[in-house]
Amino acid sequence: LSTENTALRQQLGVDSAKGSPVFITAFGKEKSLAVGGYLQFQGEFGDSPDSRFPAEDRLLIRRARLGIKGSFVENVDFVMQAEFGSGTLSPSAGYRAQLSDVYVVWNKFEQANVTLGQFKTPYGYEQLAADTKLPLIERSLPSDKLTLSRQIGAMVSGDFLDKRLHYATGLFNGTGVNTNTNDNDSFTYAGRVNGVLVNKSKFKLTAGTNVFQTHDTATAPGFTGSRSGLGFDLQAASGPLTLAAEWLQTSSDPDVGAKSKSDGWSALAGYQIIPKKLQAVVRYETFDPKDTVAGDSSDLWTLGFNYFLKGDELKLSLNYLLGDPAGPLSDQGRLLARVQVIF
Amino acid sequence: LSTENTALRQQLGVDSAKGSPVFITAFGKEKSLAVGGYLQFQGEFGDSPDSRFPAEDRLLIRRARLGIKGSFVENVDFVMQAEFGSGTLSPSAGYRAQLSDVYVVWNKFEQANVTLGQFKTPYGYEQLAADTKLPLIERSLPSDKLTLSRQIGAMVSGDFLDKRLHYATGLFNGTGVNTNTNDNDSFTYAGRVNGVLVNKSKFKLTAGTNVFQTHDTATAPGFTGSRSGLGFDLQAASGPLTLAAEWLQTSSDPDVGAKSKSDGWSALAGYQIIPKKLQAVVRYETFDPKDTVAGDSSDLWTLGFNYFLKGDELKLSLNYLLGDPAGPLSDQGRLLARVQVIF
Amino acid sequence: LSTENTALRQQLGVDSAKGSPVFITAFGKEKSLAVGGYLQFQGEFGDSPDSRFPAEDRLLIRRARLGIKGSFVENVDFVMQAEFGSGTLSPSAGYRAQLSDVYVVWNKFEQANVTLGQFKTPYGYEQLAADTKLPLIERSLPSDKLTLSRQIGAMVSGDFLDKRLHYATGLFNGTGVNTNTNDNDSFTYAGRVNGVLVNKSKFKLTAGTNVFQTHDTATAPGFTGSRSGLGFDLQAASGPLTLAAEWLQTSSDPDVGAKSKSDGWSALAGYQIIPKKLQAVVRYETFDPKDTVAGDSSDLWTLGFNYFLKGDELKLSLNYLLGDPAGPLSDQGRLLARVQVIF
Repeated sequence: LSTENTALRQQLGVDSAKGSPVFITAFGKEKSLAVGGYLQFQGEFGDSPDSRFPAEDRLLIRRARLGIKGSFVENVDFVMQAEFGSGTLSPSAGYRAQLSDVYVVWNKFEQANVTLGQFKTPYGYEQLAADTKLPLIERSLPSDKLTLSRQIGAMVSGDFLDKRLHYATGLFNGTGVNTNTNDNDSFTYAGRVNGVLVNKSKFKLTAGTNVFQTHDTATAPGFTGSRSGLGFDLQAASGPLTLAAEWLQTSSDPDVGAKSKSDGWSALAGYQIIPKKLQAVVRYETFDPKDTVAGDSSDLWTLGFNYFLKGDELKLSLNYLLGDPAGPLSDQGRLLARVQVIF
Repeated sequence: LSTENTALRQQLGVDSAKGSPVFITAFGKEKSLAVGGYLQFQGEFGDSPDSRFPAEDRLLIRRARLGIKGSFVENVDFVMQAEFGSGTLSPSAGYRAQLSDVYVVWNKFEQANVTLGQFKTPYGYEQLAADTKLPLIERSLPSDKLTLSRQIGAMVSGDFLDKRLHYATGLFNGTGVNTNTNDNDSFTYAGRVNGVLVNKSKFKLTAGTNVFQTHDTATAPGFTGSRSGLGFDLQAASGPLTLAAEWLQTSSDPDVGAKSKSDGWSALAGYQIIPKKLQAVVRYETFDPKDTVAGDSSDLWTLGFNYFLKGDELKLSLNYLLGDPAGPLSDQGRLLARVQVIF
Repeated sequence: LSTENTALRQQLGVDSAKGSPVFITAFGKEKSLAVGGYLQFQGEFGDSPDSRFPAEDRLLIRRARLGIKGSFVENVDFVMQAEFGSGTLSPSAGYRAQLSDVYVVWNKFEQANVTLGQFKTPYGYEQLAADTKLPLIERSLPSDKLTLSRQIGAMVSGDFLDKRLHYATGLFNGTGVNTNTNDNDSFTYAGRVNGVLVNKSKFKLTAGTNVFQTHDTATAPGFTGSRSGLGFDLQAASGPLTLAAEWLQTSSDPDVGAKSKSDGWSALAGYQIIPKKLQAVVRYETFDPKDTVAGDSSDLWTLGFNYFLKGDELKLSLNYLLGDPAGPLSDQGRLLARVQVIF
């Protein structure tokens, strides 16, 4: 028992000789409260292989997230997370803390969790993947341009068939994060279904599809009309090899003027050279912002390596991008280096 | 003793088999440090019953507060709380984290606590009530328009007569929150006295009065001159019934031009239909922004229900507002729904 | 053993009768995580003794910092700290939370720690001193104007000769805090060496020198060209007496136009009137922003007192500044009062 006590004291860092630290407590009546976040430092060297990157070499705080989450015994969970870093690849000076996620989940029924707040819309496989777990440093351009990212809204989601099938559907203001306005009286609707098609010891195949529908009034860049989105994605894993592909398309039907479509797709292969230590990844992606305009497409190849010092928690990544962006330039290269810490 | 240890381990969530969590400690030399906050998600549907509301349906992060508070053995407490959500009903895009409260209290003498920092001015009963405990979703328009909200300053406050009498008086920049400028060399003064008039087993009556005085130089909207405020408020509680009323008036004396007054009042009745579970509330309010201008008054009725899933910690509220705002429109209705989580 | 358990419970604040508080845990896999910060409330009364101060009396949240830091067993430490207060003496309205420091340190080798992120550049003794430990309320004007403050970059630093010699050298975007852009493809380089020259029981003498070099493209105020900095500093302590002096110079070589220099120095003496309770400090400083322009220099005397209620953790400071700023005015006085809480 004495040994037990000593072990407990050690775990807690309580030392009668040195004086114990003050442990931080929760104000409220929740049953648990936890704090964490992640840091991503990035160095970039070379040209601008797609429209998201500047042409200068630079060092940036790509992301610096701090969050808190907790649970109540009444089947209620909540999450609040803010971005303190750049949060974007686009030029941004004087960036300040801004909520990324803030939501509450009523999780009484596994088949119908209800989520309210600001969170990622259920549309786009790569968009929904966690920033800290992506195989390459940046998401593909089609994913960044053709998904809705985070929005303020309400969602119902759940699992079926022993968690092999997942669905999520929600409605949102559709005017983006951290705004308390809606452009009109209509909401944006999004939904996604994904599931496990094959799950054998040496091979796993998963797939998903998603749609969105919205009516915008004078949203940037001055677009009034309807937009709808459609996407398909497929992922396979076999031993050290992973494969993933996603196709996305947005159809725009303005109240005035001609209809148009944006689309893009990406395909990626990853291989664990040294299991749990070193991974190589290659990706191709292509994006056409407007099918009625010629010569505005861009293509990009990325070759990347991930070194896992301690899983994704302490990770070093190196990516080389070679792109043919929209416009006269082609063969634009850029080297990206990233250090990631999850805490 | 072994049982005792097991209980302690359980309370702490320390499990030798699974490995214990890391407990977060305090950097400093305070005796206690605690973290908490609250989240308010809001849906709004209908018209604009008063000037604070837009005409569109919308979903918003009404408030997302995160704070830290602690105590030193030297009779010093401190509080720091930031707003990460909208914080306002007015249109606001790209909102970012901003301090709501940050102050230190020297609480050695109960009759004369000294508070320094940014905090609510001692003026206005409803203004001073906690956001999380209000019987209706939004404060009344007269309270929002005729009180000074938070300011940066210094305050002395205390209790007398066995805590039946409370006073608070302070001086402030008077230029609002989160600014390091003062418009001139004069400060804004505010004071409030409130107390318990009757406290019987079945009936409690409390009342308060407050004043402020300020001299502004070219503050928005371009006003230079003196302003003074006066308010009275009365609250009664008897079993499941609560009543409250407040009157507020601001007198403006510009250096150039004619004097004018703004005033307004509200009266509210609440009833606990199912004790500690379901409450119904009705309120009437009226506001005249300038007595020298005709037809600029607004009136508003609100009917509301609160469902307490776990006290104010997990609360659902539904309000219907029917207003006759300033301007040609009347009978403007708006439905407000709110989910609140205090952690 | 029972006594031991009772003591442990008391230290933790776990009370079986009242119910124990919820202890906050860490999300991640770090071995330790701690939260802290500091608050500085300031009152200012009088004139504008140098260009940093407005002419109005004012109350301000000088700094309100909240941070988190942790360690991994893999020799990795991290720090994230944000400024929620004014952070500046210059007029600033609507200030919001912004990262001050965010960095990760790989500390495997004492002689070569590697730091990545946003942090103070190794240039300037007073600049590098902690805000909370400064002997006077504000840093000197030459330190504020001639150092680079925080930047985003990478640094190598370490200790030699039994920690008597310290060096740090790094490269940075050079475009300031909280920006993800670089003005051109070149980086800013800065380095510092400092050490203990004498360390006897009654006398300690330390000194340092630092340099920086940068090439700017159209940075504010529209400067394109090279800049380089040089600084020397000396500190002595003997019993209750402390002395410190620092000289800084920046040479500007614009691509178009004439070269120029800015320089300044400050000298300070502090005396502990009542050891660990009351300290008096006097400082003289002078600053010439451009040697090719006559009459733009400023001089300032400061007399200050620090009362330590609980070390630097709870500190009251009073400073009187008497300055001869650039421009026609002279003998401009300003009284500064500050309350500091470190938690």
